[in-house]
Amino acid sequence: MPPSSPSVPARAHRRRARPVGRGAPGPAGAHDRRVTAYSLLSHLECSREGTPHDADVVQGTSPVGAPLLARYDLDRVAAAVTPADIAGRPPTLWRYHEVLPVRDPARVVSLGEGMTPMVDLPRHGARLGVPALRMKDEGLVPTGSFKARGAAVGVSRAVELGVAGIAMPTNGNAGAAWAAYAARAGIGALVAMPVDAPQITRRGCAVTGAELYLVDGLIGDAGALVKAAVGERPGWQDTSTLREPYRIEGKKTMGYEIVEQLGWRAPDVILYPTGGGVGIIGIHKALREMRELGWLRGELPRLVAVQATGCAPIVDAFAAGLAESTPPADPRTVAFGITVPKALGDFLVLDAVRATGGTAIAVTDEELLAAQSALARDEGAWVCPEGAACFAAVGRLRESGWLAGDEEVVVLNTGAGLLYPDTVPVDAPVLPRP
Amino acid sequence: MPPSSPSVPARAHRRRARPVGRGAPGPAGAHDRRVTAYSLLSHLECSREGTPHDADVVQGTSPVGAPLLARYDLDRVAAAVTPADIAGRPPTLWRYHEVLPVRDPARVVSLGEGMTPMVDLPRHGARLGVPALRMKDEGLVPTGSFKARGAAVGVSRAVELGVAGIAMPTNGNAGAAWAAYAARAGIGALVAMPVDAPQITRRGCAVTGAELYLVDGLIGDAGALVKAAVGERPGWQDTSTLREPYRIEGKKTMGYEIVEQLGWRAPDVILYPTGGGVGIIGIHKALREMRELGWLRGELPRLVAVQATGCAPIVDAFAAGLAESTPPADPRTVAFGITVPKALGDFLVLDAVRATGGTAIAVTDEELLAAQSALARDEGAWVCPEGAACFAAVGRLRESGWLAGDEEVVVLNTGAGLLYPDTVPVDAPVLPRP
Repeated sequence: MPPSSPSVPARAHRRRARPVGRGAPGPAGAHDRRVTAYSLLSHLECSREGTPHDADVVQGTSPVGAPLLARYDLDRVAAAVTPADIAGRPPTLWRYHEVLPVRDPARVVSLGEGMTPMVDLPRHGARLGVPALRMKDEGLVPTGSFKARGAAVGVSRAVELGVAGIAMPTNGNAGAAWAAYAARAGIGALVAMPVDAPQITRRGCAVTGAELYLVDGLIGDAGALVKAAVGERPGWQDTSTLREPYRIEGKKTMGYEIVEQLGWRAPDVILYPTGGGVGIIGIHKALREMRELGWLRGELPRLVAVQATGCAPIVDAFAAGLAESTPPADPRTVAFGITVPKALGDFLVLDAVRATGGTAIAVTDEELLAAQSALARDEGAWVCPEGAACFAAVGRLRESGWLAGDEEVVVLNTGAGLLYPDTVPVDAPVLPRP
Repeated sequence: MPPSSPSVPARAHRRRARPVGRGAPGPAGAHDRRVTAYSLLSHLECSREGTPHDADVVQGTSPVGAPLLARYDLDRVAAAVTPADIAGRPPTLWRYHEVLPVRDPARVVSLGEGMTPMVDLPRHGARLGVPALRMKDEGLVPTGSFKARGAAVGVSRAVELGVAGIAMPTNGNAGAAWAAYAARAGIGALVAMPVDAPQITRRGCAVTGAELYLVDGLIGDAGALVKAAVGERPGWQDTSTLREPYRIEGKKTMGYEIVEQLGWRAPDVILYPTGGGVGIIGIHKALREMRELGWLRGELPRLVAVQATGCAPIVDAFAAGLAESTPPADPRTVAFGITVPKALGDFLVLDAVRATGGTAIAVTDEELLAAQSALARDEGAWVCPEGAACFAAVGRLRESGWLAGDEEVVVLNTGAGLLYPDTVPVDAPVLPRP
């Protein structure tokens, strides 16, 4: 009998590859039927102007400098695959391959990422007044953070399009993830991160052999360095947040998984810690795709962008009714991953929040560290400070009445607490040898 | 349609619970049909003398001080469930619940553990001369190490039997795991670890509210402290390695998963980093259970116990043809998790190795650190030093001819590299703000 679970190939799903699609084959295009069927990617679209762009060459942003969004032939997807088919596939994010951009399964670069647990949190939910509280635990992926999703899909597609190396600025976790998948794919990686980024993430870059630079500044400063480096390296791609089209496709699988894991329905509210915002943009994109596919019915969940008060440009813009954000003067929070003063996709984050009737909220470092501790004591889960910010936000939104007590709430914990050991104080006695 | 993947309840699989079992119901025993069907645990058996013991009260070791092994009514398991049934269950270790000891699904304490990726490693395999090399990546579980399996099953069963708190010595990772699951279950936890244990693991214990003690000594010294503490706490259980019967049941699921993920067949060789040895004992137990169930045919894989030269009592005993091990004088290795000078189950480890035609091999710290680096550069996977020891051992066994080039080899990586950041040197320039 066939394996029901993943034996993850490095660069090839060859042994699993089979003719996909149960409906009539689509029209023959630039790709043969087998290859086309694995992905039903159609084109790229400018997120500001809606103009179409070729998806089969290396692309950065659109001509007006906006992120490009991948579009699929969703009618053919709906004809080719059903939720019941997906249920029988291995538990990785590649189970949604028709709505992912990699055309040739042999180009998939995987370390087993995706299908992370959805964990009920009844004790902590009761404490917060929201008994139907759940956590999507993105600590359980390669490199320990949700960044692995974007890296797996982004690197796979880059390799498929002939990219020789990737270069990026990062607040730490994305760099470690992209470095890992670049090594897995056998391409080069250059990573630049603030010197204040979590120490473990530089180890994660170094161990895979990435070219690593520490910058005495913030992620934007690291970005300037990357831009210069890429200009000098033919065949290399700048994979800064939303400056290439496919990281978001990896991140959107969190949305597919949430809906699948709840039995192909959505919760009332999803909270997401927002730095660059790719995850919330991706989840919003996934929800709309699933509705168009007929896999999800009814209202979309309200999406909540959570930031830290030390760096809350999205929250400020939301409160002011603005379509874009303004960088704060002195951005600073223990939740380092969301120290992003100006996100290229800020307008897409604000749209996701507003279009779903969601909100944006900031919590203090004290609040998020207290939430981290309370959750771990209640449920045994050690989350990263960014994830903890969302739990603090749940408490605040319940107190204000924005969340009702009978609502079903999903929090994205975007990484393992292990990545930030210094957030946990230890006060243990050292005893002599008995 | 039902969810195909896990929405993990804290303490209850209530919504998933359903009458299990497709064959004729067994004889009514102390438990009603529904409860009995979730687990087909029959009794405990002394691993030295084969004497039966009651599985439905709290037990430690057998009267002769040997580990107790859980036994199941495997005929009824075979009648109740097939591999095809298992394929449709959520991707956690609880998919094997008939051969796990928890009788009531409502007592399952879960954070989504199990069904970790099986990752092909073609580039690193080619480097080592073993192209069919795979890694079972146990870094992708709650708390970041395979210890979560033993903790999930051990704590669940302890709670089911009325235990009020658990206390244990640890080299770090097991303590963090058991502390997490104890918090999840709402019972007490006392953990004692050597002051030299990996720093992150003490954070993992502290964050969940465990009572933590650091000991200026080795794991055996910590064990003496735990023994004294448990004596003073009615209702608490000493959950030291193999001093309670159910940790091994959690660990054995690695064996079930390897076989399921390969399509219900075994590889030629499995390598396992051996400290207390529960994993290799558990995998051996699982393989024999599956053969008895008819889920696995043919020869069992050769099991290889890997240690570090700085602490290699099992390797020494194997080489000397002895049935038990002698503690080394000054145990010391960077692979701290396998710094176990005297394992209670040493005779079971040696039996697993010998009965399967396996071997035991030690590698130096230099070799295992080089293997960690080479694997990360080849495949993007940052493994813990214990897992790295196994990759070093693959190279050595291939060189010696013990491994043939066409053999299929599975390495257990028992934890995330994140847990041991200091094993990776970083030499990155710090650049001024552009």
